[in-house]
Amino acid sequence: MAGAAIRITESDDPRIAAFRSIRERDLVGREGRFVAEGTVVLRMLAQAHTRGGGFRAEAILILENRLAGLAAILADIPADVPGYVADKTIFNGIAGFDMHRGVVAIGRREEPPSVAGLIASLPADSLVLAACGISNHDNMGALFRNAAAFGVDAFLLDETCCDPLYRKAIRVSVGSVLSLPYAQGEGARELLQSLTETGFAIWALSPRGETAVGQIAPSARLALVAGTEGEGLPDAILSQFHTARVPQAPGLDSLNVATACGIALYQMALSKGRIG
Amino acid sequence: MAGAAIRITESDDPRIAAFRSIRERDLVGREGRFVAEGTVVLRMLAQAHTRGGGFRAEAILILENRLAGLAAILADIPADVPGYVADKTIFNGIAGFDMHRGVVAIGRREEPPSVAGLIASLPADSLVLAACGISNHDNMGALFRNAAAFGVDAFLLDETCCDPLYRKAIRVSVGSVLSLPYAQGEGARELLQSLTETGFAIWALSPRGETAVGQIAPSARLALVAGTEGEGLPDAILSQFHTARVPQAPGLDSLNVATACGIALYQMALSKGRIG
Repeated sequence: MAGAAIRITESDDPRIAAFRSIRERDLVGREGRFVAEGTVVLRMLAQAHTRGGGFRAEAILILENRLAGLAAILADIPADVPGYVADKTIFNGIAGFDMHRGVVAIGRREEPPSVAGLIASLPADSLVLAACGISNHDNMGALFRNAAAFGVDAFLLDETCCDPLYRKAIRVSVGSVLSLPYAQGEGARELLQSLTETGFAIWALSPRGETAVGQIAPSARLALVAGTEGEGLPDAILSQFHTARVPQAPGLDSLNVATACGIALYQMALSKGRIG
Repeated sequence: MAGAAIRITESDDPRIAAFRSIRERDLVGREGRFVAEGTVVLRMLAQAHTRGGGFRAEAILILENRLAGLAAILADIPADVPGYVADKTIFNGIAGFDMHRGVVAIGRREEPPSVAGLIASLPADSLVLAACGISNHDNMGALFRNAAAFGVDAFLLDETCCDPLYRKAIRVSVGSVLSLPYAQGEGARELLQSLTETGFAIWALSPRGETAVGQIAPSARLALVAGTEGEGLPDAILSQFHTARVPQAPGLDSLNVATACGIALYQMALSKGRIG
């Protein structure tokens, strides 16, 4: 974004049509567009332009009293991306609710990588997270956040997972959906088959897993597989690969899937000497 | 709940006034009343009657097609607690939204324990979680869930934390707010002073903590202290106690507070030999 922001004085101005009622509408699936809200996520989106994941900002809407504070971030966004500014009444009138975050961008992902392409790009020493059937946007966002925290190289999602570009998933991920390399597609079996063929030791996470996550054997290429909270991973997957569990107090409801994966990834990153 | 459920055919029936518009209203603070939604939380509430935490069900509202499936849980609820049943239209009309969970109870906590009383009741070998200034209900619920998963003996909340009996906190905790012993009150310093005086080794969790959570020295009485996500724990606390960190990939936004505590408690439970 270069030069002065364009002032918007009517909430039905056609130039900001893409921002209208963003809570109710869903941009996902419309040519890869998504909504990035708030300062932290906007910073990730700005940085994504030079990162190669295919993410681009298309337009930014800014609450007028936030403009000065966002200057450094906005300077990292390409000059041809329009920035619109509005006062609080118009801003909330456009969004359709009290958007206290004060900044929202419409982004687009161009040419997302394929699962095969992303696997092919991985280094010899890799830590991968794979997810099957994660349909809850909070869990999806939290999985991204935890994967980023422990330096996961790639996050692979089977075709039954929800789209991580949903507004809430991006927000819960604290923007890491825009920074952590990920690809979605294929069935779970094909995806895990591809990982096996490229030398990954695959560990399926389950409350009934055989090996405690702290005892997972070291390997240059490690992949953790997570399933849905309710059903867990299908037996066909659990029977085909190593299984791991997060040890817990007896008789209690299991951990949230993102928390369990966080603990498993923490142990895997420790065993690889990546953190300590 | 004994005998037949009472059928409700009008959403403004005064007998179910306590259930009306439960999403908008907030029962917390009204004589310790709270809302327990869904099968899993209802089971926890039923079991709480014999557990001694002071939790009681006052009334239960059930979607008619869930009545048979809930029979085993309802049988564990005292006979004098009324159970109301309604069809989907009336049920949603009472709740004020599409309550797909199909069962909701109004509960009450009588005579909650004091912080001092709960500390005095702890065994010689104890694992305690203490929280200062946690104001987000999702984080509060997730902290309870993780504390329960790793067998925490007591959860102590300073006076600036939000009330865990908020509807959403109970739901996110998967009902463990009703099973894990907890007490709220006092300032953070007084609370930690009480723990020190009763022989607890206190570890304050911070992204800049000195000791990796995996290196925390074993102790019969261990306490983990967590602060808010944004500000973290105040310097006055960090400078007075041991500090611990969850090792993470460099340069990244820190973990969610509940996830970080989950990993720290996992390590503490391992070091105490409670899980493995």
